Amino acid sequence: MHQTQRQQTHALLQKRGIRRALFAHPDSVTWLTGLTPLIETGPGAFGGGPSLVWYDSGHFLLICTDAAMNSTPGIGADYDLTVTAVTGYTIEHPIDAPQRVVDVLREALVQSRGTGELAVEIESVSGSQLMAVQHALGQVEVVAADRWLVPLRMIKTDEELAAIRRAFALCDIGFEAAQQTVRAGLREIDIWTAVDSAIQQAAGRRVPLGNDCVVSTRNFNIGGPPGTLAIHPGDTVMIDLGPQHAGYWSDGCRVAYPAERTSEQLRRHRFISNALDFAISLVKPGVRARDIDEKTRAFIRDGGYPVYPHHTGHGIGVAAHEEPRIVPYNDVIIEPGMVILLEPGTYVPGESACRLEDGLLVTHDGVEILTRAPREPQVG
Amino acid sequence: MHQTQRQQTHALLQKRGIRRALFAHPDSVTWLTGLTPLIETGPGAFGGGPSLVWYDSGHFLLICTDAAMNSTPGIGADYDLTVTAVTGYTIEHPIDAPQRVVDVLREALVQSRGTGELAVEIESVSGSQLMAVQHALGQVEVVAADRWLVPLRMIKTDEELAAIRRAFALCDIGFEAAQQTVRAGLREIDIWTAVDSAIQQAAGRRVPLGNDCVVSTRNFNIGGPPGTLAIHPGDTVMIDLGPQHAGYWSDGCRVAYPAERTSEQLRRHRFISNALDFAISLVKPGVRARDIDEKTRAFIRDGGYPVYPHHTGHGIGVAAHEEPRIVPYNDVIIEPGMVILLEPGTYVPGESACRLEDGLLVTHDGVEILTRAPREPQVG
Repeated sequence: MHQTQRQQTHALLQKRGIRRALFAHPDSVTWLTGLTPLIETGPGAFGGGPSLVWYDSGHFLLICTDAAMNSTPGIGADYDLTVTAVTGYTIEHPIDAPQRVVDVLREALVQSRGTGELAVEIESVSGSQLMAVQHALGQVEVVAADRWLVPLRMIKTDEELAAIRRAFALCDIGFEAAQQTVRAGLREIDIWTAVDSAIQQAAGRRVPLGNDCVVSTRNFNIGGPPGTLAIHPGDTVMIDLGPQHAGYWSDGCRVAYPAERTSEQLRRHRFISNALDFAISLVKPGVRARDIDEKTRAFIRDGGYPVYPHHTGHGIGVAAHEEPRIVPYNDVIIEPGMVILLEPGTYVPGESACRLEDGLLVTHDGVEILTRAPREPQVG
Repeated sequence: MHQTQRQQTHALLQKRGIRRALFAHPDSVTWLTGLTPLIETGPGAFGGGPSLVWYDSGHFLLICTDAAMNSTPGIGADYDLTVTAVTGYTIEHPIDAPQRVVDVLREALVQSRGTGELAVEIESVSGSQLMAVQHALGQVEVVAADRWLVPLRMIKTDEELAAIRRAFALCDIGFEAAQQTVRAGLREIDIWTAVDSAIQQAAGRRVPLGNDCVVSTRNFNIGGPPGTLAIHPGDTVMIDLGPQHAGYWSDGCRVAYPAERTSEQLRRHRFISNALDFAISLVKPGVRARDIDEKTRAFIRDGGYPVYPHHTGHGIGVAAHEEPRIVPYNDVIIEPGMVILLEPGTYVPGESACRLEDGLLVTHDGVEILTRAPREPQVG
């Protein structure tokens, strides 16, 4: 699994003259190895726990807990990745997985074949891991390697695309459930549980799921987790879903209506759908991210609607938001193999909210749309 | 919020002669401040993000993202806790919350009134945070403070007990849904989604939810996330639930049957229920945790059943498993105000599994049982 990612990382490090590196950001660990620890219940010591990837002269060592390893069938089968799992759960002594990870790291440092400076994801490594480095290697120069892998992550491998496509299929299932469920008298949380259940039942397992389920009458109606706000006949309900599959996220947004749409709701919905089509038409290799952002905002403004205050879109992968961010400052150039979300919207707090979001795979001459759910609601 | 916790921490640090400390473990941050960042979708930069608590001569400073702060109404209202929120999400420049947290920390370090050694949760602080300490304070002696707060966390405040009771009430709702749903032909994941939906709908919001939903015919049937295994008439279904409320976890386990129980299933269920009653009867102030563990294991063994390979129980609070662990090595003495789970079980891999788990609040002369769900199934 994920051999291409390790080859790319090896090439990057060689180019920079780096022979030893320590990756600790959860996104880096998943991207380099395919490890998918349980995340739904937070950073527990048993299920997730600390993981590291140590790179030494072309070889990768994953250090993780036994629970994290067991959650990822097939990990450790590749010749270029050694996996050392430490005991996460035990009744024999206090839980000490963080210390055991440091112990394995210390041994790897002592036996290191590499020389010279050491690249470290310094924002993600723990203090005790950094101290192990300082003690084992003395006055070695530590180079901050945070975000070095981010540009590499933009272009997806076929293996990644397979996971991403399955995640987007789960997203579609969620939207179908939402359209079938939304009706006056229910609450945001009732819609959410219907969507959540449909996705988990289709996947046959627990599925980490983001994002928003909001009735338009919220004061802050751009997004947020579902609450007890009830749906009334004239409302709009915005459902933004992000299910994860095999460590890879999808994303998308649809709007549902509990009753036949008013003419303004219809007009707004179609306008935002046109804005999304317009934004999609801008995406092709060679285009700058900021230009997609600027032109899509202009489309909304020129249509006479309030311009959304958030990003126009973003890349997706082992993180739900990653490069290329489609935002005003970003000069990143669009390339084939990127997976991008676009999500124009317009919001009047307390009154109306409409955002539509599709996922795209950038191809050699345009895009393939990954979101299949219809944009037009079934009701209204 | 959580002023008692800060007073206790202040007293602990004073007793140890420590005037400056840096807490970085998510459990410590929640316990010291009441901060409850979103956890369901993993360590995202927008929703959760890095948080720190800096202690300086009696005063506490929480450094977190704006999203984490906004997720916790009422935080920052106390005179003894300053909250500094850094920008998590922005479209103006790359996401850099970890760096901004370090910037705030650096400023706090430079303005520090404390002197002498610095206590740091070294396993949880990040490398860049530790380097900020090293640069700002020079040759200051760093004392590892990991787990210093763990003993303090054992005794719950009234504020914590209120959250814990609500979490246990959600657990009961989940068990009721499970008993109503379990029937032959459904799969583990179908039971899980029914339980999950019932809990979220009762809470009126998303609820982080652990633990297990397993049909007894699994090869490893002690626990695990729900999958596609189908329920057959002679099976048992074990449901171990851990919903969270306001940063505090609950826990519990019940067994459901899709058909009338066989005489052996009935005998086993009643035996384990008796074992749980026996274990509960052992819990009172002054008792050693290991003695509860040893005697409960002996009860199972003496009854002729295979002894469970896991803990007999554990404390609970901002972590789903914390002290006092009811395990063979643990000399911790039971005290009033502790909240403890007890969960004896017996397992024959691939054949049968039965575990029953109740939550207890230790009182001055025994316990109050926090789990209300009936142990006897409705069917069978």
